[in-house]
Amino acid sequence: MRSADLFSHVTRVRSGAPLVHCLTNLVVTNFTANVLLAIGAAPAMVVAREEVAEFAPIASALSVNLGTLDEPQARAIRLAVDAARDAGTPWALDPVAVGPLSFRTAFAFDLLDAKPAVIRGNASEIISLSGGAASGRGVDSTAATDAALDAAQVLALKTQAIVAVTGATDYITDGKRVVALANGSPLMTRVTGVGCALSATVAAFVGAASRAEWFDATVAAIAYSTIAGELAARDAAMPGSFAVAYLDRLASVDEATFDKTLVQRDIASA
Amino acid sequence: MRSADLFSHVTRVRSGAPLVHCLTNLVVTNFTANVLLAIGAAPAMVVAREEVAEFAPIASALSVNLGTLDEPQARAIRLAVDAARDAGTPWALDPVAVGPLSFRTAFAFDLLDAKPAVIRGNASEIISLSGGAASGRGVDSTAATDAALDAAQVLALKTQAIVAVTGATDYITDGKRVVALANGSPLMTRVTGVGCALSATVAAFVGAASRAEWFDATVAAIAYSTIAGELAARDAAMPGSFAVAYLDRLASVDEATFDKTLVQRDIASA
Amino acid sequence: MRSADLFSHVTRVRSGAPLVHCLTNLVVTNFTANVLLAIGAAPAMVVAREEVAEFAPIASALSVNLGTLDEPQARAIRLAVDAARDAGTPWALDPVAVGPLSFRTAFAFDLLDAKPAVIRGNASEIISLSGGAASGRGVDSTAATDAALDAAQVLALKTQAIVAVTGATDYITDGKRVVALANGSPLMTRVTGVGCALSATVAAFVGAASRAEWFDATVAAIAYSTIAGELAARDAAMPGSFAVAYLDRLASVDEATFDKTLVQRDIASA
Repeated sequence: MRSADLFSHVTRVRSGAPLVHCLTNLVVTNFTANVLLAIGAAPAMVVAREEVAEFAPIASALSVNLGTLDEPQARAIRLAVDAARDAGTPWALDPVAVGPLSFRTAFAFDLLDAKPAVIRGNASEIISLSGGAASGRGVDSTAATDAALDAAQVLALKTQAIVAVTGATDYITDGKRVVALANGSPLMTRVTGVGCALSATVAAFVGAASRAEWFDATVAAIAYSTIAGELAARDAAMPGSFAVAYLDRLASVDEATFDKTLVQRDIASA
Repeated sequence: MRSADLFSHVTRVRSGAPLVHCLTNLVVTNFTANVLLAIGAAPAMVVAREEVAEFAPIASALSVNLGTLDEPQARAIRLAVDAARDAGTPWALDPVAVGPLSFRTAFAFDLLDAKPAVIRGNASEIISLSGGAASGRGVDSTAATDAALDAAQVLALKTQAIVAVTGATDYITDGKRVVALANGSPLMTRVTGVGCALSATVAAFVGAASRAEWFDATVAAIAYSTIAGELAARDAAMPGSFAVAYLDRLASVDEATFDKTLVQRDIASA
Repeated sequence: MRSADLFSHVTRVRSGAPLVHCLTNLVVTNFTANVLLAIGAAPAMVVAREEVAEFAPIASALSVNLGTLDEPQARAIRLAVDAARDAGTPWALDPVAVGPLSFRTAFAFDLLDAKPAVIRGNASEIISLSGGAASGRGVDSTAATDAALDAAQVLALKTQAIVAVTGATDYITDGKRVVALANGSPLMTRVTGVGCALSATVAAFVGAASRAEWFDATVAAIAYSTIAGELAARDAAMPGSFAVAYLDRLASVDEATFDKTLVQRDIASA
């Protein structure tokens, strides 16, 4: 995909400030909100069963993350995704640790009928959600993203969602098309919430795009975030200062730097 | 107001380390605690229905924020504010996103009978809570603070609370007196929780003051925080490093710098 | 204890990446996860009643913190510690603010029958949990650690846990042996969650050790963390930048620096 087309989605988020409704986990709420503010979006963590349905039509997009799912949150998420579907608000699913834990796994499968626009996870999570047997031990992915590409395509065809498997190489597919991206830094795995916040970023980009552009918007969100991570790793070699630099880079990467840094891989040789 | 008088409240918080009981939202608990520690106060996030009433008489002040209100938290907040009122512990209300969301809006109106010492919000929130029709879309304020000054005075007279409307210009009023402050930086809106933590800071300042000084203490808290923000924006131009610099400045601004930076506006010409 | 033996536990955490299941408070979840990632461990904040028991056998260790305990979390913690005990997964208890607040105090005493491997608290908390009368006002400790050493030994003998009282001087005891450490910085008390994350770090070190090494692993975890804090205070004098530097130092302290910085105190002269 053309770098300029991808960067146009960055510009659109910055100028449009999409309102992203997040139902996410307790560990990453703060970091996710700061990532959304850094990219120019507007975070809204409305969590109560009493309010989520009222908020769905106001929001540009909804981001759902199962990281610290419990029964009350599951009820709120169900109401929120149903309201989003009814209102035509696109929503993104981050199936954290789906596979080894049965409660969230069953819940994630149930959610698929509410038609997520995008599903973003690591290799283990995407393999599990596609119906395969993965070997995760929670948020860590023990499977390489390459192995999950087939699963991602199966899942995309089954759900009609765009599926993104992120890792050293990131794959984005709608079941037919596949884009592979190779930016980023291992430091992105040393700060909690980078992956979770990436799902919220995808939601923001999709929320600022038309339906026909959701695939491109997802690729743009992941390219932009991993490029910011790669540049931040040049600024800071340790995780505390890397997290600060990552937010700074998300707020400041310009089109020329984006273009110069972007690495897309040829799928055939991936 | 005289700069030296305002700074005396800063000194009093630093030496007295008021214990601030916070019932706040999930997004900002960590940042709020770090802001309170930076200004020299002692944060205590005691949240359980079983404990809040027991803690109210121990605390110097209570800070209540409705950002991620749900039914269990509403019950805990009700118990906490009633215990605070009975114990004579002053409490501050931050009516996050009151207006567009009915559950929290009804709850915020109900809370007013427990006599908050201070109400701090953005323009949309204060207009809504005063009974007017605002046009918020959540935590963002779409109304300028100027437009909210009338509403703030109405709300202050109705509730006998000090009301602070914060934004590019900050107004603090008890219904009769009005102080306008014009410090700060747009970067304060690019870090989640700066406004929420400001409410906790107001609670800390009020908790370290006598009842007759609550108005001055509120002005001092807002002047101090916005000056720290303005100085931090000179240290750091991007949101990640700005958040770090803001905490550093909150912990270190001295009286001479405070005096040199403070901008009060004449209300007549505001 | 020999510095090289202590540092071997640091190396073991870095290479083994123990999976630490955390049931902790709302204020410090993010910081705790980032501390665990910085030391090379893998955090997992699995919190739901439906999942905690399923996760206990997968985890290398469990870290329990009572900072924002409420009834639903109490039920989840009970299930988690019982499952950990049954699975032979060691668990650490951080009895935040036990003493002045009755709900959590009663709960903490109940938990002792599930045999924590380590209990880490400040002086007030350890005195309270040993059955004495402390004078805390919450998370602050108003008692010096010296005064808590007797209480720590009593508690260790009663529970067969390793007990660590942390403060300006840190004491670690199994009821018979006592090690005193004197590293650290007052800045560690100006950042929320440093103490809570220390308990999770102890859990990680214990989770990477054999049962016979739990005492040494606890000493190593506290020595390592306080040395990182002391070094971070040389990098940064204010709390915002100190927190960043602390994470960076946790990720990077090497054996030579550890050895040069470590201060153990002779107990007889303490």
